[in-house]
Amino acid sequence: MRFNISSELHYKIEAPSTIILNVHALQTASQEVVEESFSIEPHVSHEHFVSQSGDNRFVRLSTGDAKELVIRYRAHVNRTHELVPAAKLTQVAVKQMDSSVIPYLFPSRYCQSDKLSRLAWKMFGEIPDAYQKVAAISDWIFENVEYLRGSTDSQTSAFETITERAGVCRDFAHLGIAFCRALTIPARYFTGYAHQLEPPDFHACFEAYIGERWMLFDATRLAPLNGLVRIATGRDAADAAVAPIFGGV
Amino acid sequence: MRFNISSELHYKIEAPSTIILNVHALQTASQEVVEESFSIEPHVSHEHFVSQSGDNRFVRLSTGDAKELVIRYRAHVNRTHELVPAAKLTQVAVKQMDSSVIPYLFPSRYCQSDKLSRLAWKMFGEIPDAYQKVAAISDWIFENVEYLRGSTDSQTSAFETITERAGVCRDFAHLGIAFCRALTIPARYFTGYAHQLEPPDFHACFEAYIGERWMLFDATRLAPLNGLVRIATGRDAADAAVAPIFGGV
Amino acid sequence: MRFNISSELHYKIEAPSTIILNVHALQTASQEVVEESFSIEPHVSHEHFVSQSGDNRFVRLSTGDAKELVIRYRAHVNRTHELVPAAKLTQVAVKQMDSSVIPYLFPSRYCQSDKLSRLAWKMFGEIPDAYQKVAAISDWIFENVEYLRGSTDSQTSAFETITERAGVCRDFAHLGIAFCRALTIPARYFTGYAHQLEPPDFHACFEAYIGERWMLFDATRLAPLNGLVRIATGRDAADAAVAPIFGGV
Amino acid sequence: MRFNISSELHYKIEAPSTIILNVHALQTASQEVVEESFSIEPHVSHEHFVSQSGDNRFVRLSTGDAKELVIRYRAHVNRTHELVPAAKLTQVAVKQMDSSVIPYLFPSRYCQSDKLSRLAWKMFGEIPDAYQKVAAISDWIFENVEYLRGSTDSQTSAFETITERAGVCRDFAHLGIAFCRALTIPARYFTGYAHQLEPPDFHACFEAYIGERWMLFDATRLAPLNGLVRIATGRDAADAAVAPIFGGV
Repeated sequence: MRFNISSELHYKIEAPSTIILNVHALQTASQEVVEESFSIEPHVSHEHFVSQSGDNRFVRLSTGDAKELVIRYRAHVNRTHELVPAAKLTQVAVKQMDSSVIPYLFPSRYCQSDKLSRLAWKMFGEIPDAYQKVAAISDWIFENVEYLRGSTDSQTSAFETITERAGVCRDFAHLGIAFCRALTIPARYFTGYAHQLEPPDFHACFEAYIGERWMLFDATRLAPLNGLVRIATGRDAADAAVAPIFGGV
Repeated sequence: MRFNISSELHYKIEAPSTIILNVHALQTASQEVVEESFSIEPHVSHEHFVSQSGDNRFVRLSTGDAKELVIRYRAHVNRTHELVPAAKLTQVAVKQMDSSVIPYLFPSRYCQSDKLSRLAWKMFGEIPDAYQKVAAISDWIFENVEYLRGSTDSQTSAFETITERAGVCRDFAHLGIAFCRALTIPARYFTGYAHQLEPPDFHACFEAYIGERWMLFDATRLAPLNGLVRIATGRDAADAAVAPIFGGV
Repeated sequence: MRFNISSELHYKIEAPSTIILNVHALQTASQEVVEESFSIEPHVSHEHFVSQSGDNRFVRLSTGDAKELVIRYRAHVNRTHELVPAAKLTQVAVKQMDSSVIPYLFPSRYCQSDKLSRLAWKMFGEIPDAYQKVAAISDWIFENVEYLRGSTDSQTSAFETITERAGVCRDFAHLGIAFCRALTIPARYFTGYAHQLEPPDFHACFEAYIGERWMLFDATRLAPLNGLVRIATGRDAADAAVAPIFGGV
Repeated sequence: MRFNISSELHYKIEAPSTIILNVHALQTASQEVVEESFSIEPHVSHEHFVSQSGDNRFVRLSTGDAKELVIRYRAHVNRTHELVPAAKLTQVAVKQMDSSVIPYLFPSRYCQSDKLSRLAWKMFGEIPDAYQKVAAISDWIFENVEYLRGSTDSQTSAFETITERAGVCRDFAHLGIAFCRALTIPARYFTGYAHQLEPPDFHACFEAYIGERWMLFDATRLAPLNGLVRIATGRDAADAAVAPIFGGV
């Protein structure tokens, strides 16, 4: 399936800063970037680099004395989808897990799986099948957490969302990740472009490692899973934020 | 300098589990493992592997039906120490930072640098020199946080320690890391064997990335910095725990 | 029904302190203190007083230079029990609530009902009958929170217990109170002597204001409700602690 | 000194609710309400009552089917000010404290003095004089916490403010209260009309019990202390909110 994606970011800058942009579509086995363009207006010095763990494509730019910046990214992306029979998506035992996957078992800033452990086992521990387990987590979040713009901020974490029961896609993803990790299923944060999201925006979901592959789940049900173009993955939004800014406070 | 280190861990096991042990001394440019021995009694299946990011040496073992396990590790380690003039330990700008270092700028499970940002700038923001800044952080923690066994647990984080003002080496390290990251200085968690710690134990400190190298700081002042043998580094204790256990709850 | 109760508290004292003891059985319409004795050994200066709101009977004592104190309280108490038909235990509307009851609608230190609001309505909001609602809360806590000595401490609050799912009687009571208040049902903390608790100890439960009276619920199910002798009530354990101590740190 | 105060509150109502209004100036020894008017438009059923502990004057109103309400309160208030020599404002020992004051020693929803204990003693414990101690607390908050509209919400508590270092008058007051209680100085929340606040608004401060009287402190320094007309006091904003609303969620 072919996607045309585009994004435009506007910044007002108070002091010279460095921004690490995370807007480029990934190049993976199932996602081919056919053509893309990237521009910064006015032109400021920047460089492209790839994250060490994972393949996230970053742009690091220095604002210099610019007071405003407009960043545009456009791409044509081909995605292929492999249908994996659910029966194959079994739990991978820690003793057989590839070492690159193990960090996604540990708690992270916004996914305090260590605090949700007893709860996760009570709620989902008895579902024997790994795929069914993660699907049940995703369904439960959809049914029990309200999608409510403005109810959370950039410091909100899964530990709050599980009780406060409201949030946006970022919070839904963090909660899904925290539950999976609490159940010894590796899970990571996914950001991407969503095809049919209204209003169009970056979207966040989560991936669980089952059947020795990363499977995507969207607890918000806002975008069809085959309508997402991958930008980045990380342990949580701290790793995969769209554009962290480092400047004077 | 040469160190003889040894550790012995005892486990009682209720249900078959997988343990990821993190007790081996690292092999680095400044730390040579001359000789080592590792044993598990009774013998259970296990494998050695190295973490993807960083060089941590792990052992993954499956307890099988064993009810008790004794794990012993002994090593002779040579460490060399390079004296770096403090004047060279300047702050590395984000725009010049190696991409492998960038993840250590982000908040993590136990180091919520995003929540400590305003505080860190108020307390240390005006110290111009990077080495002086991190030294001031380490001194401040030593002077203002009480070393108190039993005052914290495995869920305690920097956000609590900054107010509750008590903890153990793990908490001191987390707080140091959170302050550094809040000031855009990459920082990571260090675990090692401490030469003269009483009682002898694993020790935790933190490293800050200044002058394009990782410099070690110990806010507890319990062990001389040149008496530490490195086991592992990570974003925080979630990454570099001595022995996370994955079993039925 | 007649109860013989006794308690003995032992203190080691490092610096002269003031202790506010909260161990005396209350004198109420349904609870008659027939006979009681109270002693402090060695004798130190103390005075009895009654809390302004509520009828809690306190003893305020100054340790002076005593290094150890033994406090003994014994009483014979008659309790009568009125059977109230559940049908009468209807919700009292805020607009008809006695003003003395209104403070028990607000969140308190360990009962953050403001944070549990959306959750409480999702879980129990559709149960029309007030008694059934509180009974469902109490049952849910019993079934979903594990009674686990040592899993919590004096700073643990309902906001943690709802996720961590473990605690002692104090935590069970705080969670019950938080749920009730979130549903606009006044609720308060109850401490008392439990007749058949093993090991014998002070016990904590919660009371909900329904049908214009305070009804007792014990989410731990550790003690029969008609086997409890009331010592005190308060907004939560901050108000009704057995013996807060005020001394040098 | 004579004050003319007025307030006007506008509500949009979605479902029939009960509102407990807390806008009437208090009648106290040092504050005389010479004349006042109160109106609700359209007229809905309501009643005046006084809180059990303290003298807060509430209005409880039922919105009925009204879709909008405008509430107006105007008053002429005379305030007298007694000058108390600082030397008289000594700490009151717990053993000599009036029992009505004791509840203000305990932690409350937004003032977790139990968590700030070690910090408070480190920061202010060595100041011998009680008035100087509370003044130092108030000064410290003014100098170290940024007054920043929109940085906090109705769930923010002192435990967050001490680290995040930003807030509004409510947050400044909660932090002052938490510090005082941690130092065994009773403290309570004060809401009032501020004479010269720009924009005119309700204001919140805190009172500390020293020298056997309640002394007012304003860590925001936004309003002169002798320009405040008292509406209510309470343990914290949970008790003394301007207008909690109880309706369907």
